[in-house]
Amino acid sequence: MSPVMRPYLPHTAAFASGRNSPRDFLERCLADLETWEPRIGAFVAVNLAAAREAADVATKRWREGHQVSPIDGMPVGIKDIIETRDMPTEQGSPLFAGWRTERDAAAVAALRAAGAVVVGKTVTTEFAATTARGTRNPWDTARTPGGSSSGSAAAVAAGLVSVALGTQVIGSTIRPASYCGCYGFKPTVGAINRGGSYDYLSQSATGTIAATLAEAWVVAYEMAVRAGGDPGFPGLAGPATAPAAEKPRRLAVVESAGWAHATAAAKQEMETAVKRLAAAGVEIRTRQNDPKVAAVESAIAEARQRSADINAWESRWPLNTYRDRDASKLSSAALERLKQAESMTIDEYRGLLRERREARARYAELSADVAATLSLSAPAAAPVGIGSTGDPHCTVHTSYLAVPAISLPLFHDEGLPLGLQVVGFVERDAETFATAAWIEEQCRVG
Amino acid sequence: MSPVMRPYLPHTAAFASGRNSPRDFLERCLADLETWEPRIGAFVAVNLAAAREAADVATKRWREGHQVSPIDGMPVGIKDIIETRDMPTEQGSPLFAGWRTERDAAAVAALRAAGAVVVGKTVTTEFAATTARGTRNPWDTARTPGGSSSGSAAAVAAGLVSVALGTQVIGSTIRPASYCGCYGFKPTVGAINRGGSYDYLSQSATGTIAATLAEAWVVAYEMAVRAGGDPGFPGLAGPATAPAAEKPRRLAVVESAGWAHATAAAKQEMETAVKRLAAAGVEIRTRQNDPKVAAVESAIAEARQRSADINAWESRWPLNTYRDRDASKLSSAALERLKQAESMTIDEYRGLLRERREARARYAELSADVAATLSLSAPAAAPVGIGSTGDPHCTVHTSYLAVPAISLPLFHDEGLPLGLQVVGFVERDAETFATAAWIEEQCRVG
Repeated sequence: MSPVMRPYLPHTAAFASGRNSPRDFLERCLADLETWEPRIGAFVAVNLAAAREAADVATKRWREGHQVSPIDGMPVGIKDIIETRDMPTEQGSPLFAGWRTERDAAAVAALRAAGAVVVGKTVTTEFAATTARGTRNPWDTARTPGGSSSGSAAAVAAGLVSVALGTQVIGSTIRPASYCGCYGFKPTVGAINRGGSYDYLSQSATGTIAATLAEAWVVAYEMAVRAGGDPGFPGLAGPATAPAAEKPRRLAVVESAGWAHATAAAKQEMETAVKRLAAAGVEIRTRQNDPKVAAVESAIAEARQRSADINAWESRWPLNTYRDRDASKLSSAALERLKQAESMTIDEYRGLLRERREARARYAELSADVAATLSLSAPAAAPVGIGSTGDPHCTVHTSYLAVPAISLPLFHDEGLPLGLQVVGFVERDAETFATAAWIEEQCRVG
Repeated sequence: MSPVMRPYLPHTAAFASGRNSPRDFLERCLADLETWEPRIGAFVAVNLAAAREAADVATKRWREGHQVSPIDGMPVGIKDIIETRDMPTEQGSPLFAGWRTERDAAAVAALRAAGAVVVGKTVTTEFAATTARGTRNPWDTARTPGGSSSGSAAAVAAGLVSVALGTQVIGSTIRPASYCGCYGFKPTVGAINRGGSYDYLSQSATGTIAATLAEAWVVAYEMAVRAGGDPGFPGLAGPATAPAAEKPRRLAVVESAGWAHATAAAKQEMETAVKRLAAAGVEIRTRQNDPKVAAVESAIAEARQRSADINAWESRWPLNTYRDRDASKLSSAALERLKQAESMTIDEYRGLLRERREARARYAELSADVAATLSLSAPAAAPVGIGSTGDPHCTVHTSYLAVPAISLPLFHDEGLPLGLQVVGFVERDAETFATAAWIEEQCRVG
């Protein structure tokens, strides 16, 4: 049984007539939930009664022509580091089993205000870091769905919801989207309000994992327009509908540190796609023909370790308070990370920030020349085993650089999904979507 | 009975010999607590057993020469929007009565790691905004202590703790420090980690209200070196001991919007001080002799309204979730602020950010010319009545500009305390202290 994603927007045209409805749509999701959930374990908690009630309200609004947004009635999943008023926020940690904050996070409040139907909380690794919590990949349940937004990607891939929220500080949105064959959108850092999301890190961003590219955009837009970005940030800017495909004049291929880990099949997929784009008349920049690309590759070569160090320092708190409360409920990875963090000094952290700022400046120099840069979303298909969430070396640079990244499920490896990653420039999320839409058109053809 | 502040650092020299001890010091604080607390209502909660236990541990460390920091054993108060593992975090709201998060905020964890003795949670206005919660000014209990860090200033003024944490987004640290005759330090935005502090606003900063200028610095330093700044910020930089007094070559007098509200006595105090500094050889810049000062005054003229608008947009969440949960537990001011916020668009907010960025650039231009700028900390002594927290027009520009501000309790109005505000430049907090220390020496003389 292959998983099938479930786009929502194409159905809304039939909602006014009553031939279809948000409630009907939800029931189809829930039927799949019954089949799939025991196999993949995408959810920590669901609230089906509340979901059905919200779907009924949305059904009535569409019938009366009073829908509050294009996503009114859309079933969504919420990564379990993000607060919901009607379900616990367990953060993938036994320390927070059953813990309730009695409020919605900013993004969740915005989704509800836009009419979205919150089906449940999706599994996250412990504190959105490395320790996996049992979710399986719907394409092959012997494999990881990736992480940390494990349940969000698995639930979207299996059609249990149309869109789910992810967060990324290393690779937590793009990597699981790649492994599960979904569309993934990791916006510019700051683009979507993180209030009530338990990821306090400076590289972190809330994003979407979706059944279509359009829905990845529209859901992000509906959140941003209501909840804004992080305080002090302008927030995701762009149109209410998905940006139309726009052919770029130039693109760059960026070989992140992940390229060296890529399988032959993954490299072949990438090379074929790039040839196709070049054949369509796009000028392709690489480190061979553009020293600016080479400078970027050099600036991000250590992004994995530097990001890990930045995150470690920034995670000292609250991990230190959790250890003091009950160390037995933390994973050994979390305790190890804390130990490393506590050996760091604030001066080391300042040095890391300086390097990161310089890398960002190098990357920004490309923005005058190319519309976006291309990479693999992961070096390979999802690996076998559910203990690890996979290799982050293809994604970490976009979090390090704070730039928008989109994973398009265009490639395959071992007969399983693999993403092409389209990476834009700070606060140019909409332009990145327009480029990604055009790339998808080109690469889907034939 | 006049309140008397209780500096801690001068006592530590006697701790090794046992002639004095952190526990003895604490008991003197607690004796005053018994006298004062019924009159001023500075605390929401205290944990005296835990405080005594922590003071005993510190006592032992000092005896053995193993003190963990210069503030080991210092009694401190924590503004009640900041999490503490052993007390509720009620945020000045009936909605959060008794609410516990079971963890320390980043700043509190750092204070405890430095050996500080947490006496209790100090009263804050509702969500650190405008609605006062009953604290009275120890200098005249018919008057407000200011806000929103009402209890922190009152507790320090009355000697119940040596230092207390404040936060400021409009005037919430400097104004109560001025009204209560304490030293107040509102650092560069981002300088002290706000993790676990329920003020999510882009202008907000955690700071100190203290019995001496030196202790305002040292406590901030001890937090920053352990907890860092906000994620992505370099954090407070400077020496472990209070920066030594340094005579500035030039200072500017900035007449904020509050100057027009100032009493004749307050203006007279300011003019006398400025004359004294000029007589000591400091060149004084004003809008009359420096167009850059005039440009700054013009750029901050609307800082009050613009800050209120920025804060309103950034407070939509979580206020919307609180209203949906139980509107009857929110003040009419909070509901009104939310209503205003919900009438704003993200584009208006972006415009406000642009204006703020431009104002910050205007102010930064002064940094090449002057060591700091001077203003009143408030236009007058604390007003009579405890329903309002007073006029914020003298302080709001420093939050709007994100720059460090120090209130020195050098002035008087109606026989009550009033602060001279020394305002520095982004990430030059230590230099601002050095200038403030010199100004204090000059203005204390005679």
